[in-house]
Amino acid sequence: MTQYTEIHLIKRPDGKPVGPHLFEVVKKDIPTAGPGQVLIKQTHMSLDPAMLGWMSPDTESYIPPVELGAVMRSSGLGEVIESNHRRYKAGDIVTGMTGWAEYTLSDGRGFSKLQEGVDAETALAVFALPGLTATQGMKILEPKAGETMVVTGAAGSVGSIAGQMAKADGLRVIGVVGDAEKTDWIVNTLGFDGAINYKTDDLEARLKELTPNGVDVFFENTGGAIQQHIFNRMNTHGRIVVCGMIADYTSKTPAPGPNWIPLIKKRIRIQGFAMPDHFADAPELIAKLAPYVMQGKIKYRTHILHGLESAMTGLNLFFTGENKGKLIVKL
Amino acid sequence: MTQYTEIHLIKRPDGKPVGPHLFEVVKKDIPTAGPGQVLIKQTHMSLDPAMLGWMSPDTESYIPPVELGAVMRSSGLGEVIESNHRRYKAGDIVTGMTGWAEYTLSDGRGFSKLQEGVDAETALAVFALPGLTATQGMKILEPKAGETMVVTGAAGSVGSIAGQMAKADGLRVIGVVGDAEKTDWIVNTLGFDGAINYKTDDLEARLKELTPNGVDVFFENTGGAIQQHIFNRMNTHGRIVVCGMIADYTSKTPAPGPNWIPLIKKRIRIQGFAMPDHFADAPELIAKLAPYVMQGKIKYRTHILHGLESAMTGLNLFFTGENKGKLIVKL
Repeated sequence: MTQYTEIHLIKRPDGKPVGPHLFEVVKKDIPTAGPGQVLIKQTHMSLDPAMLGWMSPDTESYIPPVELGAVMRSSGLGEVIESNHRRYKAGDIVTGMTGWAEYTLSDGRGFSKLQEGVDAETALAVFALPGLTATQGMKILEPKAGETMVVTGAAGSVGSIAGQMAKADGLRVIGVVGDAEKTDWIVNTLGFDGAINYKTDDLEARLKELTPNGVDVFFENTGGAIQQHIFNRMNTHGRIVVCGMIADYTSKTPAPGPNWIPLIKKRIRIQGFAMPDHFADAPELIAKLAPYVMQGKIKYRTHILHGLESAMTGLNLFFTGENKGKLIVKL
Repeated sequence: MTQYTEIHLIKRPDGKPVGPHLFEVVKKDIPTAGPGQVLIKQTHMSLDPAMLGWMSPDTESYIPPVELGAVMRSSGLGEVIESNHRRYKAGDIVTGMTGWAEYTLSDGRGFSKLQEGVDAETALAVFALPGLTATQGMKILEPKAGETMVVTGAAGSVGSIAGQMAKADGLRVIGVVGDAEKTDWIVNTLGFDGAINYKTDDLEARLKELTPNGVDVFFENTGGAIQQHIFNRMNTHGRIVVCGMIADYTSKTPAPGPNWIPLIKKRIRIQGFAMPDHFADAPELIAKLAPYVMQGKIKYRTHILHGLESAMTGLNLFFTGENKGKLIVKL
């Protein structure tokens, strides 16, 4: 085989489900590594909700959008095939911004070797964007033992880790999910104190029942109608971190948010964040996260897609909520 | 004269303009100071927007509501008439929580002597709730020279001080007010870089024109339709402090707030606050504020009402925006 496949973004999302009409599948000759370069063969590619933002033309976002005609941006894991770079040798397993491509040529920047004793799936599901994001969000929330946290997207890659960190820290943790299977998973496998199905439950009543002492910290991954109900339950000096709003990403006119009067009455803090601001803190965040993982306190599951082309429709699983665990494309 | 007047709250606000129907004017005999007590004759009483909150039955607020039948709560300034308290002697001028009463008997707690060289009006208009609140808000906002701040209620007691502190710190400051006279005052007397009349201007166009580089810090004192427009202009890493929402205090169904997606895209922080949380920091806040005042950088004006009874309708001036300067009732 002398050719490989890469996928280019050729059209901005148009409100219809994300799919092949936005992309072009391109065949190219496998290159060789030039001076200082390393050739990486990708084996595991991460799909993350943030990608939906990277595809949109919004120039106000935290990271420039993927240019039309360019390889779609993503992180992943692969094997070094050929190296003219002093830090890498053939056979090394590395993680970094691989993109939607079977092979990537890099000058090594933004890549790092896989940590000893960490397998590929843990690397992408925990020690990559999901775990870093969860850890940064929890850092902003300053949770205290005995407090109550509500996390939306609680079975998602970020929400599930954040919730388990909070449980390990002695908080009462309530997760919001979209189906019964996820309800079962976060309560019976992850050990959350309760679950709310935002599609079927009476949100106000169920939330009141599960948070008898109100809500101290709110980890927002989804947006949607539940947001106002959680906001209404916030306690004095409550903290909210806004990490994702997937329910609103495709709507032309985003749903309004809560009125700000309770922010004064209860002296609430709301902080939005995005990981690219905190990549320099990655070592610190990893150091914070690692003990939870080593003590077996972070369970996760993966949802594996097969073949590069599966990514094009795979992104839709974030909108439908049908993914069960961290989305990884195996190449 | 052996009798004095005090005013009791006897009814919660009912959506109608605040007025005598909510209060009872009571005549009492002037008491004498018991052991450890001090008798204060109030000369200047402060009216503040926070009072509207203290009158409402909301138990979630930062300070318990005034009980029905009790003297209406307020801060003020007065002269010590009689003292059995070691810290005070007859003739001292003191400030503290005087209440709506011509005479107050106190054990001295919550009162302090007027600082040397500060007159009564400066004491209430600057070195009391307005100045402390402005200083605390600016502390939360962490303004930097060269940034742009928008402040609502910009001619109000808090907004005018906050805006002048920002100007002194080298920010571009745009104020939102409700009439042409205030527009003129904040620009030509206080030196703000621009003013928006929220009642008559095309908000979006005017805001865009006055904030060519966007908005970095937003000091929110009013709420109302302008809020969404200012929010739309926020820059990356913008900060918002929510100090007042007077436009919504009397509405049964508060207007919705902005959608939270921009909080993520621009990593914005929103913090609500209320001064009672920070009273312990008053010395620190005063120390921060005093240099601005001593350097002549804080101008203010007062709107004087006469006689205790004038307070009952005076509170409405906050809703109509007709007050021109810090509201003080002279007794």
